[in-house]
Amino acid sequence: MSTIYTLAVDAMGGDHAPGVIVAGLAIAAERHPEARFLLVGDTALVEPLLERHPKAEAACTLRHAAEVIGNDMKPIAALRSRDSSMRIAIDAVAGGEAAGVVTAGNTGALLALAKIIIKTLPGIDRPAIAGIGPSARGDVVMLDLGANIICDARNLVEFAIMGDVFARTVLGLTGPTIGLLNVGAEEQKGDESLRQAADVLKASHVGPQFHGFIEGHDIGAGTTDVVVTDGFSGNIAMKTGEGALRLIGDLLRQVFSSSLMARLGYLLARPGLDRLREWLDPRRYNGAVMLGLNGVVVKSHGGTDAEGFAHAVDVAMDMVVHRFNENIREGLARIAELSTGLAKDKDEGGPRLATAG
Amino acid sequence: MSTIYTLAVDAMGGDHAPGVIVAGLAIAAERHPEARFLLVGDTALVEPLLERHPKAEAACTLRHAAEVIGNDMKPIAALRSRDSSMRIAIDAVAGGEAAGVVTAGNTGALLALAKIIIKTLPGIDRPAIAGIGPSARGDVVMLDLGANIICDARNLVEFAIMGDVFARTVLGLTGPTIGLLNVGAEEQKGDESLRQAADVLKASHVGPQFHGFIEGHDIGAGTTDVVVTDGFSGNIAMKTGEGALRLIGDLLRQVFSSSLMARLGYLLARPGLDRLREWLDPRRYNGAVMLGLNGVVVKSHGGTDAEGFAHAVDVAMDMVVHRFNENIREGLARIAELSTGLAKDKDEGGPRLATAG
Repeated sequence: MSTIYTLAVDAMGGDHAPGVIVAGLAIAAERHPEARFLLVGDTALVEPLLERHPKAEAACTLRHAAEVIGNDMKPIAALRSRDSSMRIAIDAVAGGEAAGVVTAGNTGALLALAKIIIKTLPGIDRPAIAGIGPSARGDVVMLDLGANIICDARNLVEFAIMGDVFARTVLGLTGPTIGLLNVGAEEQKGDESLRQAADVLKASHVGPQFHGFIEGHDIGAGTTDVVVTDGFSGNIAMKTGEGALRLIGDLLRQVFSSSLMARLGYLLARPGLDRLREWLDPRRYNGAVMLGLNGVVVKSHGGTDAEGFAHAVDVAMDMVVHRFNENIREGLARIAELSTGLAKDKDEGGPRLATAG
Repeated sequence: MSTIYTLAVDAMGGDHAPGVIVAGLAIAAERHPEARFLLVGDTALVEPLLERHPKAEAACTLRHAAEVIGNDMKPIAALRSRDSSMRIAIDAVAGGEAAGVVTAGNTGALLALAKIIIKTLPGIDRPAIAGIGPSARGDVVMLDLGANIICDARNLVEFAIMGDVFARTVLGLTGPTIGLLNVGAEEQKGDESLRQAADVLKASHVGPQFHGFIEGHDIGAGTTDVVVTDGFSGNIAMKTGEGALRLIGDLLRQVFSSSLMARLGYLLARPGLDRLREWLDPRRYNGAVMLGLNGVVVKSHGGTDAEGFAHAVDVAMDMVVHRFNENIREGLARIAELSTGLAKDKDEGGPRLATAG
């Protein structure tokens, strides 16, 4: 008999909810027979959808939520709404009913609610948002993508530990390499917190995997499996990379439709070009994860489709099944002594909530 | 009779100096008949090269320099070398012999030497490094690319003013739009210095051109003509974008060589693909510029070829001919009152020298 894992799912978050959410769960239910979904949303809207997706229906328990947190709602307002689908889904994780939550809703609201209701893991100062992207040498994990716009050395060290476990759990790597994003690879580059974090990581149990400082171009080159940075730079790097890929995609489309010969050329090269497009498909990288919380929290892109939402569920299942948070706890215990010193040096202000979109 | 403009050129900086430098000047001399070059380097090496490039020779005055600043030399060490080719070229600008300097040498050394010897323009707190990159809507100017890893509101405002003048001078735009790079477009995003800078820019003479906050993907989309950011994020964004373009370029090469059909497809689509490659050619964007100094300072990429170095000379000539620094002075005068308040609020620490590679 196999273990059953329950995920709470916000049926109402995202641009195409609840239709895409239910259709995504139909795909996910087939991929993960061991998964059950506590689906939270407006039953009047969701029930008819479930009837059309019997595979999703079989794996779902429906729970009503009267309110929805809009995409533009500020975190403060989101915290006041006790009957929102996102809030009730998060409550289910805090109450132990579900091992994790998946939503395509408002990122800032999710981060604020998760921090307050699910709370951070013991020993974690700030949760971080992690994501996966493509590189010349395979998938790369990057964090923080925007949860903390200012980070101190302790935060960066914790992100590295969490990124290490994430790369092992979700990418299945043994001994993933770790890089600290900086403006140059030399040891004297960057500010004090980067240099302190590098020193601690070198001395820690991930020392043998620690590559040192890396630069922006190393992300696409896949120099390391894990890219650690503050939430401001990480958010900008992620979106700049996405923007550059989109630019090239648009330009290639123009090239291949510019003449009859070019169209023919496209048809001949199509199998390879299609594979490339598939490999770079943003849906394959859907599912930013909030790490450092007492439960698995996965944020799907708001504009994704059913396949993309199913991928976000894949990520949540990987983390739940492979006991992500227990591995984090072990990693933290191993750096506890090293990071005590850093905690004392911490700036008064501390990192701020960015709620990056 | 047309005016003659003199640029000091470091013959010894970069990976392929002095060969590529002299070959680049041969191209530049033809494009800019009004240019004269004070070429500084080891005469024993440079003279024979000039003999092989009569067009360069006709435009050059050779000045001997006994030393070379290596790529790995730290700025402190570079400052001690009084007989380096870079130093003598910079001295020529400080002494009024040349209107600007072009070098493919060590960026950190150049920034340190330029700040100390050429000095910043009156009213400028920190010089910034600006560069030009491709976007869906034409060329985009971005600054700072790494001169200052921490920036306050006053720095960001000054970068915006300098970026505006740079876009007018080098890209030939009238009323370029300006964006402040942030983790979200909403007004409450980012830290205090970003929000303060946005307020000042809105109230300033560039207010009508100021688009507000932009995100990483807006760089490639060309949402604004000028992208203003601190040197840490700017350096990472630039290199991440370059890395993403390189990744796609490599993958496309693989696709087009993966089968006979794909090769044929490439040949059919080739005219368009070649135009795309040309348009994205890093040499077309060669020539990062140090803005805010009492003279024009252009840094060519160290690994560039003759065509790329000639492009860096193009940028320097554009700035000299179009009286870049006089325009900056006017822009600064117009925001003087607005930015006085910011100067007082400045953090004690202030920005630090990053010497990004």
